[in-house]
Amino acid sequence: MTSDPILPELKRLRASIDNIDAALIYLLSERFKCTKRVGALKAEHALPASDPGREKEQIARLRALAHEADLDPEFAEKFLNFVITEVIHHHLAAAGKK
Amino acid sequence: MTSDPILPELKRLRASIDNIDAALIYLLSERFKCTKRVGALKAEHALPASDPGREKEQIARLRALAHEADLDPEFAEKFLNFVITEVIHHHLAAAGKK
Repeated sequence: MTSDPILPELKRLRASIDNIDAALIYLLSERFKCTKRVGALKAEHALPASDPGREKEQIARLRALAHEADLDPEFAEKFLNFVITEVIHHHLAAAGKK
Repeated sequence: MTSDPILPELKRLRASIDNIDAALIYLLSERFKCTKRVGALKAEHALPASDPGREKEQIARLRALAHEADLDPEFAEKFLNFVITEVIHHHLAAAGKK
């Protein structure tokens, strides 16, 4: 027993996790491209950086998707909040408020 | 100007964000399937739930991928830590430690 096991199944699982993580990073980058453009549009039209109505809809939708995908809906909501916090940070920066 | 604008570009961007979010949720679900199996293997072999060496490698790799993908490497690292926190929570539960 070592602290860095190389059990074959563990190695295979870690290779899959690494592939999934790469996909997640590229998707998150695409998502931020969209939200940066949303931020620019909002700044241009003097709209507020956050939109509670839209966020409420997104949370409800992601919780339902998580349920279908066999993912904890609480985690899906925490994840969206984590991403939205970063997005609002970008929007405020784009609006010159920080 | 309303608080719920329906500028056509904003609508298009939001539709893309919603599609990307669905993809993220399904990928995260797959990732947790892998890490739950890792947790079961670790519990079975009495291995520690967290593995700082592996995490260090993952962080370095994701920061490099983020750089390539034009995503803030700081955000990529925060994201990985956010996911790993949830994974450790699952591993501890699988090991009957909570």
